[in-house]
Amino acid sequence: MIITLLTDFGTDSPYPGIMKGVVLGICPAAHVVDITHDIAPQDIEAAAFVLKGAFRWFPTGSVHCAVVDPGVGSDRAVLIVRAGEHLFTAPDNGILKYIFAEFPDARVWRAGNQAYFLPDVSRTFHGRDIFAPVAAHLTNGVSPEKIGTETEDYIRGEIRRSVIKPDSIRGEIIWFDRFGNAVTNIHESALKAAAGVTVRIGNRVIQGLSQSYSDREPGELLAVIGSFGYLELAVRNGNIKQALGLAAGDKIEIRF
Amino acid sequence: MIITLLTDFGTDSPYPGIMKGVVLGICPAAHVVDITHDIAPQDIEAAAFVLKGAFRWFPTGSVHCAVVDPGVGSDRAVLIVRAGEHLFTAPDNGILKYIFAEFPDARVWRAGNQAYFLPDVSRTFHGRDIFAPVAAHLTNGVSPEKIGTETEDYIRGEIRRSVIKPDSIRGEIIWFDRFGNAVTNIHESALKAAAGVTVRIGNRVIQGLSQSYSDREPGELLAVIGSFGYLELAVRNGNIKQALGLAAGDKIEIRF
Amino acid sequence: MIITLLTDFGTDSPYPGIMKGVVLGICPAAHVVDITHDIAPQDIEAAAFVLKGAFRWFPTGSVHCAVVDPGVGSDRAVLIVRAGEHLFTAPDNGILKYIFAEFPDARVWRAGNQAYFLPDVSRTFHGRDIFAPVAAHLTNGVSPEKIGTETEDYIRGEIRRSVIKPDSIRGEIIWFDRFGNAVTNIHESALKAAAGVTVRIGNRVIQGLSQSYSDREPGELLAVIGSFGYLELAVRNGNIKQALGLAAGDKIEIRF
Repeated sequence: MIITLLTDFGTDSPYPGIMKGVVLGICPAAHVVDITHDIAPQDIEAAAFVLKGAFRWFPTGSVHCAVVDPGVGSDRAVLIVRAGEHLFTAPDNGILKYIFAEFPDARVWRAGNQAYFLPDVSRTFHGRDIFAPVAAHLTNGVSPEKIGTETEDYIRGEIRRSVIKPDSIRGEIIWFDRFGNAVTNIHESALKAAAGVTVRIGNRVIQGLSQSYSDREPGELLAVIGSFGYLELAVRNGNIKQALGLAAGDKIEIRF
Repeated sequence: MIITLLTDFGTDSPYPGIMKGVVLGICPAAHVVDITHDIAPQDIEAAAFVLKGAFRWFPTGSVHCAVVDPGVGSDRAVLIVRAGEHLFTAPDNGILKYIFAEFPDARVWRAGNQAYFLPDVSRTFHGRDIFAPVAAHLTNGVSPEKIGTETEDYIRGEIRRSVIKPDSIRGEIIWFDRFGNAVTNIHESALKAAAGVTVRIGNRVIQGLSQSYSDREPGELLAVIGSFGYLELAVRNGNIKQALGLAAGDKIEIRF
Repeated sequence: MIITLLTDFGTDSPYPGIMKGVVLGICPAAHVVDITHDIAPQDIEAAAFVLKGAFRWFPTGSVHCAVVDPGVGSDRAVLIVRAGEHLFTAPDNGILKYIFAEFPDARVWRAGNQAYFLPDVSRTFHGRDIFAPVAAHLTNGVSPEKIGTETEDYIRGEIRRSVIKPDSIRGEIIWFDRFGNAVTNIHESALKAAAGVTVRIGNRVIQGLSQSYSDREPGELLAVIGSFGYLELAVRNGNIKQALGLAAGDKIEIRF
């Protein structure tokens, strides 16, 4: 009976709490867990990546409610997705692109039955008026068929994949965690022969992959497989984003 | 069995967690929900407005515990308020002014029965020592009469209302949300004839009300009815507070 | 059935939510409460002090999971500690030093039974892979003996105590709360004769202890016994950290 919330509303804002009030009014037994509310405003790319990294650690049967929604108030659709044993509800804007890629058999519904929304739907806060009640009704066991109409017309989204060649990988920075560590789109599965690699970021070079942050001295650059299974670049006990002036989209090159 | 918390203690501080520990020691079945802990320090005005916007989205029977309390340690009273089907506990400093305005029949008690406080009440943290235990006992079904004495001697607070004339409305900015959107005290009920309005803020003019943020191009100023039912001023995909250098209390004028 | 979390992962990060997902997969009835996730990165000293101040407000039987862990991925041990009626799990790096000082009879185990970890333990996120599952199994009633081996070989840590003389106390700043108030290591028990004291911080002097923040005028420096029972220095309605440019470790002198 878990509902997760992932939004850009801000932990400091009252909006996540209001969503929980709506959820608990419909499904008093729900256990609502915040994944994060501090996605940079309207950064669908970061939200998609964080959701991909987080949802799999929750028990099957959880309902994941992801609301980064620059198009709120327009006619973008509200999606319900069943992917494996997980349910999702989110705006139709690409935020679920990694879910669609991982679960090619995912089923998708456009939520249109207003009986499962709040009675008065605002133009500006569908997190409260649509997504929270839909997630609560799904958790109560209402089937997606009752809330929406199955569709194949939705935004699958484009995944910026790393380019893997025999002697190199080219990727990019997708997201920074709180420590300023740069999380890339280069998956550990491409890095089996880790010992001899060279990682290039801008005009800096990192020799070899570390097994953990503590492998290097404080202040040293390092490359490590992070907790989401992707290559991360970091400064031991420091902040590589600030130290090198990095930004999402910056290119990474690995040579074997 | 919901208790909401609204404070200025900071999400980053341990104090909200400590309040939850106290609550759960008295009422293990309580479901504690954070509205926000990031009210600007001692900003009673913002806290009152956020509480007004948030409490109504929680199920009836919820207990709302609002602690923005510059007078902690002085002899200001601790209030318990029954307003409609909601219960509140808060310091007697105006933080409940919108509740009193909305519920003229609200009943108010001064909490004085120390049997329902923690045994040792500090001078600096009544959120932990008084408000959390009082909220937990109320949630356990203890009646306000047992915890306090009914009173009509409390701070009703002054509400800065907008001034509505046939051809204009004068209001002001009450609060900024996380995106920097400026929330005003001009309610949607005063804006029925929205099509032809002109909104003036400082020396800038916004023509017409938008139906949603996505009605305007990125970077454009816009005016919209926000999720609390009040006029909000915003920059599409931007931050109007920073862009125009706005502050709470800044005047807004609308002409029809 | 309470599990508390105290980390430096950041409230804005997805990692605390992921830990909750893991906990709830193992112990669905757990009530997970955040103490804070905003300890400054790798600040074991602040984490230890906040944990000491917070854990005692939770019901006995709670499991406290404290993960500030610069040595993640190295061979530092994972500890389980039974101290009085409380259980703790944390890395072996001194974060529990105040617990060991307060409970000389505490029993300590090195958690080594991987049956109680997640199946694949990463090198970078033991909060998810080890500490969260261990806390969940402890909450399910699994005994520490099953998860680990009792040991006396662990880091007890050094506590920076204030130096108490007949006419003076020398202490230091340990931690700043969200308001910028400076929390010191001078306990109220050393300050019984509070009336005539002089508090010296840098080249500033505060005469006498206040009973509460509201005893002084806005903008005035004050010294007060804070909610953790320690001397705090503050500016009424202000931020003493910024006003005086203070830092953790700054020395305080009290004269009677």
